[in-house]
Amino acid sequence: MPSSDPSTTPAEAGRRIQQAFSPDNLRELTHRLADVLGRHMESAQSSSGNVLNWNEPPENCRLASEFLDSASPLQSDAQPLADRFEAVATQMLARGHNLHDPRYIGHQVPASVPLAGLFDAIGSVTNQVMAVYEMGPWATAVERSLVDRIGQAIGFESGTFAGLVTHGGTLGNMTGLLTARNVALGDAWETGMNASEGAPVLVAQGDSHYSISRTAGMIGIGTRNVLRVGLDERRRMDPTQLDETLTRLRKRGTPIVAVCACACATPIGAFDPLPEIAEVCQRHEVWLHVDAAHGGAACLSDKYRHLIAGLELADSVVADAHKMMFVPALCAFVFYKNREHRFEAFRQDAPYLFDPSSPGPAEYDSGMLTPECTKRAASYGLWGVWSLFGQQLFSDMVDQTFDLGRVFYEKLIDSPDFEPLHEPQCNIVAFQYIPDALRVAPPEELNRFLLKLRHDLIRSGEFYIVQAKIDGKQALRVTIINPLTTADHLDALMDAIRRTGQQVLAH
Amino acid sequence: MPSSDPSTTPAEAGRRIQQAFSPDNLRELTHRLADVLGRHMESAQSSSGNVLNWNEPPENCRLASEFLDSASPLQSDAQPLADRFEAVATQMLARGHNLHDPRYIGHQVPASVPLAGLFDAIGSVTNQVMAVYEMGPWATAVERSLVDRIGQAIGFESGTFAGLVTHGGTLGNMTGLLTARNVALGDAWETGMNASEGAPVLVAQGDSHYSISRTAGMIGIGTRNVLRVGLDERRRMDPTQLDETLTRLRKRGTPIVAVCACACATPIGAFDPLPEIAEVCQRHEVWLHVDAAHGGAACLSDKYRHLIAGLELADSVVADAHKMMFVPALCAFVFYKNREHRFEAFRQDAPYLFDPSSPGPAEYDSGMLTPECTKRAASYGLWGVWSLFGQQLFSDMVDQTFDLGRVFYEKLIDSPDFEPLHEPQCNIVAFQYIPDALRVAPPEELNRFLLKLRHDLIRSGEFYIVQAKIDGKQALRVTIINPLTTADHLDALMDAIRRTGQQVLAH
Repeated sequence: MPSSDPSTTPAEAGRRIQQAFSPDNLRELTHRLADVLGRHMESAQSSSGNVLNWNEPPENCRLASEFLDSASPLQSDAQPLADRFEAVATQMLARGHNLHDPRYIGHQVPASVPLAGLFDAIGSVTNQVMAVYEMGPWATAVERSLVDRIGQAIGFESGTFAGLVTHGGTLGNMTGLLTARNVALGDAWETGMNASEGAPVLVAQGDSHYSISRTAGMIGIGTRNVLRVGLDERRRMDPTQLDETLTRLRKRGTPIVAVCACACATPIGAFDPLPEIAEVCQRHEVWLHVDAAHGGAACLSDKYRHLIAGLELADSVVADAHKMMFVPALCAFVFYKNREHRFEAFRQDAPYLFDPSSPGPAEYDSGMLTPECTKRAASYGLWGVWSLFGQQLFSDMVDQTFDLGRVFYEKLIDSPDFEPLHEPQCNIVAFQYIPDALRVAPPEELNRFLLKLRHDLIRSGEFYIVQAKIDGKQALRVTIINPLTTADHLDALMDAIRRTGQQVLAH
Repeated sequence: MPSSDPSTTPAEAGRRIQQAFSPDNLRELTHRLADVLGRHMESAQSSSGNVLNWNEPPENCRLASEFLDSASPLQSDAQPLADRFEAVATQMLARGHNLHDPRYIGHQVPASVPLAGLFDAIGSVTNQVMAVYEMGPWATAVERSLVDRIGQAIGFESGTFAGLVTHGGTLGNMTGLLTARNVALGDAWETGMNASEGAPVLVAQGDSHYSISRTAGMIGIGTRNVLRVGLDERRRMDPTQLDETLTRLRKRGTPIVAVCACACATPIGAFDPLPEIAEVCQRHEVWLHVDAAHGGAACLSDKYRHLIAGLELADSVVADAHKMMFVPALCAFVFYKNREHRFEAFRQDAPYLFDPSSPGPAEYDSGMLTPECTKRAASYGLWGVWSLFGQQLFSDMVDQTFDLGRVFYEKLIDSPDFEPLHEPQCNIVAFQYIPDALRVAPPEELNRFLLKLRHDLIRSGEFYIVQAKIDGKQALRVTIINPLTTADHLDALMDAIRRTGQQVLAH
């Protein structure tokens, strides 16, 4: 077990602290970082290495642990410190995942605007946080300015809505649904779910993200009390079936926490028909929550905002900036149509924290609104990039990547050995590669083949794509969430899939 | 409402994206950042400006919003972009809170090691995330190596414990207690808390952090079902009273989710007697959760690790690296003594995400363990600083700041116009300033005076301290969580409090 060094003296401790906090060292190492990051970004964008640097988990853990042991507790001056820093930084980059390689066409995690990371760095180096306004006056202001801007772009009416930023879409869905639970069930926050009469239910889109059932597990509803509404032929929630479900539940007197719709659902990127769903919810007086983690950014695009028409009718909405606004994780927005609901998720009493001399209900204290108490300045990256390039850049990136989803679909249609599993509405496309040899094979054989194909492809470092299972069919799945990816890369992807597939078949 | 610019052309969109992603721009702006950050850190550490840059919230929000509007959607070359970047960065720093000013002696949020922010920046610029191992192979390895290292320093036995990193102590407490709930109540995750027989309770230290009652509200226990155990004269949980409480509950058959102890509690930094508490919990077969968000780092100090003796007996433990390990927010560790419990908090089914061909129960997929699905590489900062300076630096910082808590206490004792409200165990000290004019005033008058005093002091920018209410007494409260703060700064703080106090009295 590592232990502190008994031979160290107070003077050495002082020098060590001075080195760690020295402004000169900070300046020197940041200059080093500039060159290391510049080189790395050039290499990634030009595909000069692997997309994913695969290594077995125990081996990576061993390497990470070795670095902890090989530190030198006291540097003689700044120069060896900068060298050590460069070695550590280089290792981190060499072992990571290159999302900025245009052949990264994978999860709903973007090749983020690199400059966003520099604004985040300003928050990290100076440790700007929120919870109470006075701890993060500018962090709070930045978040509020973006909540206003994006909320209005969604279509909420200025002055009547509220919003917040939290660490990811899962926590965003949890926050929105916690508000719905507390509104629907009255005093569940204080008395617990045990006191509720009848088992309350969540009604969810059949393909809704696992964070919806996770939320049900977390907030005391129970995963078995998530009722799935049937989908139409494009895997969108069917408003007629929703109406029938709500009618049946109301007749039985079952408490309904909320309806969860998607914009879009993860498997194939299906956008639910929100105006029709909102109408059904309003008629049954049920809270409508929309998980627009992926698609919410369409509000910034003239070309694609039609996909989220009706989003402004939802009672709560989640939209992740760290997806289609192309900023680094994590920066998820939650909106409430009615600002009166903003304090319903959490109810606070922390006398050491919230100054009772503050005006009103701590209107600017983010800790009242979010699951985090101390919260980092999570929207510095988005605010900074917006302040550099304006809203137009976000619109450009949505348009380009959504357009390319269509292009890929057409390529798949034109290729007899590929089969798209749906017509894409955005930049998510699920498909199968079916070589001649497996055209008449049992479905399980094709499924196993595709899993193995993806496994081999991503570990080769040539491309990064993901997988999904849709109606029992094993799919290959791409999210074109890298603005540097072009149609040519998609052609190359198809070739690489063919080649890898043939290798799998050969073994 | 802002909208995208209809006059923009596809070629312009392409140029804008190219500028935003350009490796050359990244390099150039990072070099700019080096100089901006270096200057700022010099200024903050030399107290050349205000600690807190106070501005009224609506005014800051207006300023933040102006920047969003004043962006120039297309820069002609890199130079004006770098100038704009510098202007935006300078504004962020000028309007923020200077935690690195040694006169910042405030919340339990540290003047973090500035270099930690550079390692975080590597994660942000390249957007390294977790959830599944293959998305963040190095981020996962880094987290695992630190879980191992810190868990062993706490005293857990290698190979038998498990751990994870999440976005803050509140989510850490929620995760640990969710595990306790699911273990104690069997199938609460699936059936909901509504199906539980009898109202389950949480038993908590009387001064436990608001995130404990918040958790009770969130996970369906209910805030009214948090039972507070009485404190001893040093505000530590009294094991005898705990024993009586558990005996009474067991006799009644009330389901007990967990006992929540503190290491330390927030108001005055009291460390509970963990060995005695663990013995009581074991005897009653109740889960012991210890919120060691603040004090957990004492495991890295030979001098102060006695404060957390017995922490290794807890079933779950929270320790925030973004407190006494001096890294930027947020990086909170959760540990389970018994690694068999690591998958109990959340139970997953996300076929599009977790590759069924992965070995075992997705052992290295962090999304199985944490409330976040996509999670940023939150421990890059800690891992990087540890890799530069070794464990000894963390030990140094704990020793220096805890020592200084004692120094401050002795200064208060020696000053007739100051009154410490407790003997400190660490770097948290709550006290009153009682000028002669208020020595015989009604307590409410003194309370109002101290609130106003702090209000004026922090807005002046001269010092940053916080407030708390302890047994009805309004306290001034410091956390010496800045390794650059010296005894001289504490003398100056007392002078500033006297001076500000006299000004308050004069009005």
